[in-house]
Amino acid sequence: MKHLSRREFLSTAVLSAAATATALAVPSVVTAAMRGKKSPKSDPKIQLKQGAVILFQGDSITDYGRRREVTTFNSPEALGYGYASRIASALSLTYADLAPRLYNRGVSGDKVYQLRDRWQTDCYDLQPDVLSILIGVNDFWHAIEGHYDGTPEIYRRDYLALMEQTRERLPDTQVVICEPYAINGVKAVTDAWYPAFDEIRAAAREVADQYADVFVPFQQVFDRALEVAPASYWTADGVHANLAGSQLMAQAWLEATGL
Amino acid sequence: MKHLSRREFLSTAVLSAAATATALAVPSVVTAAMRGKKSPKSDPKIQLKQGAVILFQGDSITDYGRRREVTTFNSPEALGYGYASRIASALSLTYADLAPRLYNRGVSGDKVYQLRDRWQTDCYDLQPDVLSILIGVNDFWHAIEGHYDGTPEIYRRDYLALMEQTRERLPDTQVVICEPYAINGVKAVTDAWYPAFDEIRAAAREVADQYADVFVPFQQVFDRALEVAPASYWTADGVHANLAGSQLMAQAWLEATGL
Repeated sequence: MKHLSRREFLSTAVLSAAATATALAVPSVVTAAMRGKKSPKSDPKIQLKQGAVILFQGDSITDYGRRREVTTFNSPEALGYGYASRIASALSLTYADLAPRLYNRGVSGDKVYQLRDRWQTDCYDLQPDVLSILIGVNDFWHAIEGHYDGTPEIYRRDYLALMEQTRERLPDTQVVICEPYAINGVKAVTDAWYPAFDEIRAAAREVADQYADVFVPFQQVFDRALEVAPASYWTADGVHANLAGSQLMAQAWLEATGL
Repeated sequence: MKHLSRREFLSTAVLSAAATATALAVPSVVTAAMRGKKSPKSDPKIQLKQGAVILFQGDSITDYGRRREVTTFNSPEALGYGYASRIASALSLTYADLAPRLYNRGVSGDKVYQLRDRWQTDCYDLQPDVLSILIGVNDFWHAIEGHYDGTPEIYRRDYLALMEQTRERLPDTQVVICEPYAINGVKAVTDAWYPAFDEIRAAAREVADQYADVFVPFQQVFDRALEVAPASYWTADGVHANLAGSQLMAQAWLEATGL
């Protein structure tokens, strides 16, 4: 097989298709996957090598209906329906020549201490080159609902400790910390969440400042998205992103990492 | 709520986020969703109006594990794991201000006559503004395996008749016809498929020439993708796209339609 670089492929991908297609007046079907991402101003914050292992970790927002019995990488069923799946499919195309290996190991209901309890199996054993984490809303939500005794300070302490250990065990892993978010006024999320929930967000930012290569500011992304479409367009319950919300998160993640 | 146009939103989306984020050096998290798509040279072939209904129709490649009991639009579970879901999430973000309504009604195993048999319920009743169809591989595959008596000519005749009726019943619907594809040498697909399978592709092209606003040349897209990564990277059996293959199809569809 003749090998083209990714850039060569992207610039020539369907020139032949365009020549014969009825209504395809574009130079390349696949260039759109790369467009704008490689501008000279914005080098990727995250570097991918051949066969890079990319792991998404978190709670139900990450989990999003994945089939947990499927453990292979790049399985659509194992990646679920949420932002992790949308990022994974985008990376699988954009970096096809690198054949990245994408895993989702989010577990619904998880708080940060529950990540810790399964971190050997669900993180260290996978030896990720890129580790992306979104955790925190349950650390607050389950507490305010009376199902959990934690506090923002416990979340902060546990998260810092988990990342301290992770950096020791996986010194070469690139880390992406995603900001916990909530949409006030939608179902589960009320004024009673504030300002306490902001402490969770601030703690995640502190963890990112100390241990992450990239921080993804989901709260601010959702806040701005509300100027285009109402909250119900992005989330049904204020916590879980829906189709559009998940794509918004994926796009934010891709832009923040520069991938 | 202050209303911003999509373009205003996309150009200002996370300026505030960028100002405070640890490692987000980009002007807008969401611009990437639009990048390159609105160049002056390539106006969209397909126009979307407020609340546009977009319907994906076809066989298992479209179906791809969707939960058929969920009938609501924009449900990730109802959209499945394949190219339809990847297109849907992209459109749901890019055109958030229009709040498009996306449906997947692909059914595994379907041939073109089976689309016809469920067309009232699964097409006309939904009154799509945009109708995208990928059908044909089973019309050939099931025949070559001896499970079906059809021929490429029957496929051609039935498909032309279906689209003739569809154009009469839905004169304002914009139609996207997708090219059936197969990856020779992968599992199910062998030299025995050729050149007969090419007659299926040619028939789909003929249908598109007569009845479609846009034709999406999937075969040629996959052929070129094989120059970047081996066939197994895009499909497990030569017929069904996997994660990367589905994203490739979605990107091709978005580029062909100009959306």
